[in-house]
Amino acid sequence: MGKLIGFLLLISSLFFSLVVAADWNILNQGKKNINGVVGDGLKKYCESWRINVEVNNIRGFDVVPQECVEYIRKYMTSSQYKADSERALEEVALYLSGCCCTLEGDGKDAWIFDVDDTLLSTIPYFKKHGFGGEKLNATSLEAWMKESKAPALEHTLKLFHDIKDRGFKIFLISSRRETLRSSSVDNLIKVGYHGWTSLLLRGLEDEFMEVQKYKSEARHRLIDEGYRIWGIVGDQWSSFEGLPVPKRTFKLPNSMYHI
Amino acid sequence: MGKLIGFLLLISSLFFSLVVAADWNILNQGKKNINGVVGDGLKKYCESWRINVEVNNIRGFDVVPQECVEYIRKYMTSSQYKADSERALEEVALYLSGCCCTLEGDGKDAWIFDVDDTLLSTIPYFKKHGFGGEKLNATSLEAWMKESKAPALEHTLKLFHDIKDRGFKIFLISSRRETLRSSSVDNLIKVGYHGWTSLLLRGLEDEFMEVQKYKSEARHRLIDEGYRIWGIVGDQWSSFEGLPVPKRTFKLPNSMYHI
Repeated sequence: MGKLIGFLLLISSLFFSLVVAADWNILNQGKKNINGVVGDGLKKYCESWRINVEVNNIRGFDVVPQECVEYIRKYMTSSQYKADSERALEEVALYLSGCCCTLEGDGKDAWIFDVDDTLLSTIPYFKKHGFGGEKLNATSLEAWMKESKAPALEHTLKLFHDIKDRGFKIFLISSRRETLRSSSVDNLIKVGYHGWTSLLLRGLEDEFMEVQKYKSEARHRLIDEGYRIWGIVGDQWSSFEGLPVPKRTFKLPNSMYHI
Repeated sequence: MGKLIGFLLLISSLFFSLVVAADWNILNQGKKNINGVVGDGLKKYCESWRINVEVNNIRGFDVVPQECVEYIRKYMTSSQYKADSERALEEVALYLSGCCCTLEGDGKDAWIFDVDDTLLSTIPYFKKHGFGGEKLNATSLEAWMKESKAPALEHTLKLFHDIKDRGFKIFLISSRRETLRSSSVDNLIKVGYHGWTSLLLRGLEDEFMEVQKYKSEARHRLIDEGYRIWGIVGDQWSSFEGLPVPKRTFKLPNSMYHI
């Protein structure tokens, strides 16, 4: 009887261990089914959307596709976003330390930066506004900008001063409106930017102009004033496109909006 | 005695089941340590490298960084690469079906394609040559091209015929050398391309010219001949850059080489 009980207990215990093992397996496969197959399909779709935004194949989107908002949230708050930005800025450093720019020392060597998502991050705003999944509300975005609370993109801040210390004149060409001048200057200074030559904002007459046209006209004026534009760092293709064609451009990632 | 044996067997069996469970756990954590932590750091680095190549921040690299060859192999043979390419071509279709191009029906509406890794895939070659991790050997690549065995990129093949059927004249501007003309034509026809207006290859006089200059001069000649260039599909930024600035460009992914 004792042997029989022992044997039964042994069998049930072995059975239990097999169940544990099988259950583990099912659980893992289950995860794979949820995050692996369905999740992978959506991830692949959203990754394709994002890369095609980044290389300028997808243009002028109003909102991030609803099904990709979570993917974009993850990316824009990830260490991958930081690493991608840093790598872009490392390429600027390489370009500068190479034989890119023989400065003439006449004060006419210029470098251009975008402001939003290049010098300052709008991620805290978009965190509260669906990471590009909501149609952009200019009033609410400008109200946030007026608070001058945007943090610096740390790596651009470092690069900004490197470039300035090399003797370049720095021009900030932003699609922010002229009415935001004092809050923009406050914000920039508060987080560590100083010493730029000029901050160009959109006046009333520029507001109905396409951003790309406004920015290329600003470059035109600089060249007319005798500046040599050695490079542009920005997060939007509209900062690079059109004439005059810049010598070099450096694209920072941004898949939350397109202007 | 029987009870004791039974009890001991029970205990050892329970112990065994715990070991199985624990082992599973360790194994899974182990995987996480190998593919999760170390793997993730390298993956992040290589992903940043790739995206910065794609957006044209990293230019003129000779070889894919050794530590990223495996990552690039995975990407270039993945369904993600296919999805990214398809998405780019979908944007062409959207552009065409929108009000992009009011064709004048005078036979002067033109569309440009690259050849390698746009119409034809060189992946079978690079599979045997380290996926960009080996310095490009022109002799060996040209020997492979002479075999005319490059497969079509299926989605570009479909788009090619769509564009032709809409009444565009198709120009293939390739950095392949003139000596490869007959094998290139054979290859293109064998996999389903036909009906292009002209295949431009690099003559002796173009060989010492930068690819970007060669390609923009080819566009210049087309415009001088009265063509309107509505778009370019290519895998290299050198196919888009310089003057004349094309109306629209569509970048296909390629992180194996840069020309």
